[in-house]
Amino acid sequence: MTEKQQVPLYDTERIDDLLTYELKIIQSHEVFCFSMDAVLLARFAQVPKRGKVLDFCTGNGVIPMLMTTRTPFAEFEGIELQERLFHMAERNVIMNGLETRITMHHGDVREAVERFGDSQYDLITCNPPYMPPITGEVSKNDHRAIARHEIHLTLDDVLRVGSKLLKNGGKLALVHRATRLIDIVTGMRKYGIEPKRMRFVHSRQDSEPNMVLVEGMRGGKPELRIQPPLIVYKQGEEYCDELYEIYYGKRDSLT
Amino acid sequence: MTEKQQVPLYDTERIDDLLTYELKIIQSHEVFCFSMDAVLLARFAQVPKRGKVLDFCTGNGVIPMLMTTRTPFAEFEGIELQERLFHMAERNVIMNGLETRITMHHGDVREAVERFGDSQYDLITCNPPYMPPITGEVSKNDHRAIARHEIHLTLDDVLRVGSKLLKNGGKLALVHRATRLIDIVTGMRKYGIEPKRMRFVHSRQDSEPNMVLVEGMRGGKPELRIQPPLIVYKQGEEYCDELYEIYYGKRDSLT
Repeated sequence: MTEKQQVPLYDTERIDDLLTYELKIIQSHEVFCFSMDAVLLARFAQVPKRGKVLDFCTGNGVIPMLMTTRTPFAEFEGIELQERLFHMAERNVIMNGLETRITMHHGDVREAVERFGDSQYDLITCNPPYMPPITGEVSKNDHRAIARHEIHLTLDDVLRVGSKLLKNGGKLALVHRATRLIDIVTGMRKYGIEPKRMRFVHSRQDSEPNMVLVEGMRGGKPELRIQPPLIVYKQGEEYCDELYEIYYGKRDSLT
Repeated sequence: MTEKQQVPLYDTERIDDLLTYELKIIQSHEVFCFSMDAVLLARFAQVPKRGKVLDFCTGNGVIPMLMTTRTPFAEFEGIELQERLFHMAERNVIMNGLETRITMHHGDVREAVERFGDSQYDLITCNPPYMPPITGEVSKNDHRAIARHEIHLTLDDVLRVGSKLLKNGGKLALVHRATRLIDIVTGMRKYGIEPKRMRFVHSRQDSEPNMVLVEGMRGGKPELRIQPPLIVYKQGEEYCDELYEIYYGKRDSLT
């Protein structure tokens, strides 16, 4: 860790507490705010003790920041297409004194193999755009639309590029809509990533899952482990105990 | 319904109560007993009000028997490779007065397309052998080994033949080990059956699922619905209320 530094804030940005350890994060409701999905993925992925980790579509960098708390040795990187979000991610790294742990890259995931080389990473994480492409023009400044819709990056892109970047035995961990499960797992197999672990996220115990966490291994053997359902809310609007433990970083992982 | 008739029992056979309506069933611990999985599948599958339904690997016929209680009109068939089990299934139909509702066939699922013709069925159900093939010889008389292991029929066979037998828009419903989920859904897509609905069966609320119920539609569009987890036991060894409703047929389906 390097020293924490003050960084400038622009426009609608604010600094929020990440709750985990003493991490703080710059975000903006007009541009990008991290969601519960990102927090769940950062705890679900099996972070290697040492080795290289890359987060696709890193946004303001919340996922690599949270993952640094899980090992003192691994090297983290994030890649973000949108310049405005990339700069937010860079300032987040500086503000939290994480320059020696995290490197942020500005650019297109689809060009990542040419840029970083193949078979380089032990873990790739991605909280991708969930929504289908918007028909019609999307403004260059519509940051939220680009982060949410499959405009610049499809699920197939994530899996194809991810597979090339991973070492054999390396892992790819995703969070996505549960309705897309079949596309995720058939796409993983298509690119030589075997789904090995899965967890469904339900708002309530008796509800259908909204989201799914999936981890696959490049070159892994078929044998899937499905973990117990992750339930978000108790009766009413109160979080379940496990959710508090995840947010406060008390539970080291969802594995 | 025709009149119920007395039928002979052989060797270790006994008559059990199926709990649902007034159905009774012949089974034998040495040869074949139905499991909870069969009961769950019979309630999970979307039985068409009218139309044709075929149960692969029907064993003693428990699945078609249970499904008759869900519609007065659909025509049910079962196919079973093992002669001893086929005769048990035939006697079960007669004993319950279901000759006008269910037809049992003795034979190999892999020859079903030649025998019954393609695009004939609205629903195919299967509680297949779960276990990998046994290495070494299996005795012809080892009925339980044949029913449990992929000796004569693989998952790929079930999906390939099932797809051919189904009408376009027809459904295939399976119960299987949750660890095989990826093989099931990638296999379904391979044969043009889109997984549409899924439910995981957990022994307890905080345990990993043992089994999964999956329903796919031949020629269906991608969009998966995952239902709330089905929990078998409360604290201790008592069944959850939903299980009682399923067993006693009070809950018409798990859909």
